[in-house]
Amino acid sequence: MEPFDLYIVGCGSANPTQKHRPACQVLSTRGKLFMIDCGEGTQMRFARMGLSMKRVGHIFISHTHGDHCMGLPGLICTMGLLGRTSQLHIHAPQELEPFLQTSLQTFCPDLDFQVQFHAVDTRAHQIVHEDRSVEVWSLPLHHRVPCCGYLFKEKPGLPHIIRDMIDMYEIPVSQINNIKAGMDWTLPDGTLIPNSRLTTPPSPTRSFAYCSDTAPSRSLVPLVHGVDLLFHEATFPKDEELRARLTAHSTSTEAAQIAKEAEVKRLCIGHYSSRIKDESLLLHEAQTIFPNTIAADEGMHVKI
Amino acid sequence: MEPFDLYIVGCGSANPTQKHRPACQVLSTRGKLFMIDCGEGTQMRFARMGLSMKRVGHIFISHTHGDHCMGLPGLICTMGLLGRTSQLHIHAPQELEPFLQTSLQTFCPDLDFQVQFHAVDTRAHQIVHEDRSVEVWSLPLHHRVPCCGYLFKEKPGLPHIIRDMIDMYEIPVSQINNIKAGMDWTLPDGTLIPNSRLTTPPSPTRSFAYCSDTAPSRSLVPLVHGVDLLFHEATFPKDEELRARLTAHSTSTEAAQIAKEAEVKRLCIGHYSSRIKDESLLLHEAQTIFPNTIAADEGMHVKI
Repeated sequence: MEPFDLYIVGCGSANPTQKHRPACQVLSTRGKLFMIDCGEGTQMRFARMGLSMKRVGHIFISHTHGDHCMGLPGLICTMGLLGRTSQLHIHAPQELEPFLQTSLQTFCPDLDFQVQFHAVDTRAHQIVHEDRSVEVWSLPLHHRVPCCGYLFKEKPGLPHIIRDMIDMYEIPVSQINNIKAGMDWTLPDGTLIPNSRLTTPPSPTRSFAYCSDTAPSRSLVPLVHGVDLLFHEATFPKDEELRARLTAHSTSTEAAQIAKEAEVKRLCIGHYSSRIKDESLLLHEAQTIFPNTIAADEGMHVKI
Repeated sequence: MEPFDLYIVGCGSANPTQKHRPACQVLSTRGKLFMIDCGEGTQMRFARMGLSMKRVGHIFISHTHGDHCMGLPGLICTMGLLGRTSQLHIHAPQELEPFLQTSLQTFCPDLDFQVQFHAVDTRAHQIVHEDRSVEVWSLPLHHRVPCCGYLFKEKPGLPHIIRDMIDMYEIPVSQINNIKAGMDWTLPDGTLIPNSRLTTPPSPTRSFAYCSDTAPSRSLVPLVHGVDLLFHEATFPKDEELRARLTAHSTSTEAAQIAKEAEVKRLCIGHYSSRIKDESLLLHEAQTIFPNTIAADEGMHVKI
């Protein structure tokens, strides 16, 4: 099965700490890397994790708080220094564009590749990007500035051919793609071999939802229903609910409650406040409500 | 003697490596920190080195290449989060202002402190900042964009009182400042004690020049003549002189030649190309010409 893997590049929040880095995650599938948020220092962390900037074609930014996007200018300039020529797409709330354009104008006006900005309507749940392998949907979130999450839905692949049957019926290689596309096979004696004897169904599709930063939002529940992995911010522990309300963030238990109601398969929490000394407290609080919870950490690699 | 200390926060160049960080240095004197350049990630490194953002009142930026100033927006936002109220002064080439203003507008429009931008004429050698303890002068450099270094000249302190003489003549504490200011002392019997018997001369003043990024520049020699410490970029080794010319940088031997001609007391090299595997090669090349050379490294603390 093709990988559909999440890399946690940074899972801290606004005020940097010795332990956590500003927000950045990377979804890797079919040779492509989708970057989600790009906090300060992302380019350095990226290289350290063995990820290649060349494979990043699309970057999705949730909102214009610095810890989610200040790493963009440096990343883009370095892509230029490394000789990139292929277009880079930035999907973000409209509010990011002046910073992006001024940064490019100031630091790298002569890039050999185009940086294409796509304004995302943070209030709408709609497809913001689509290719042969995935659909990326915006997820309206509730934060202090326009903000949205992103839902990555893998598209169904082709059926798998059954190698032994192909060999037995001596089906030529030139016909494999037709068989994968659903064609039956007729033997020289006229016998029809139905496609179902030559293939097994495609691998199940997978999905990942990134929801940060946000106050707990009921309206998110149907949008992320049943996803394989939900990343939901849990900036504060349960007993700092008041602070969560004041700052439009979520507590660990609130994140878990959303995961439970949305019947997701797995929850990953992160975006820890700099006041958190021990994330295992947040993890335990979340697991009480939604047992299949993991706690994000820098360098973590999650197979979805 | 008051400290006049240099901290190397980052001494890499444009293309980030696992070893070196983008440019940032801090000069610490009389309780104040003067920051020079502010590459991406400076705020994280700063805290790690035990330096306090609160003590930074003035930041001096050499030029608008990203590895020298992309850390400013994050640093300023974090100062705001930490409750800063005192004015922050940014001295930089005019070209930086749009990036700075757009960043503040995007990420922290409601700061509780004022960020005052001061455009520096990079072609002039003149005082750009002055307080009771130091003068900061611009140093015209030759790079691909308008660029200047900065010369920090300590002002003479007051003479030191000779405690034993003060005690012997029973001079009251209230008169110490007058004695420091040069006053003689008259004993009850009318005998005049000249000031020279009560004080020793003030500590010698110290100076530090930061010169990065630049092609080797003869016109720099008289401006940094005799400084206690010269930081001069040495992006490349001797055998990459052609590359140094093409990129308007210096080699290790060129940096040492400037130090020698300017008769500085000590040279510190840095701003290493990402292609450098072993900085000791550059150090040895420089020491051949100017023996009293040290090689910058992250976290280094140099007493001047």
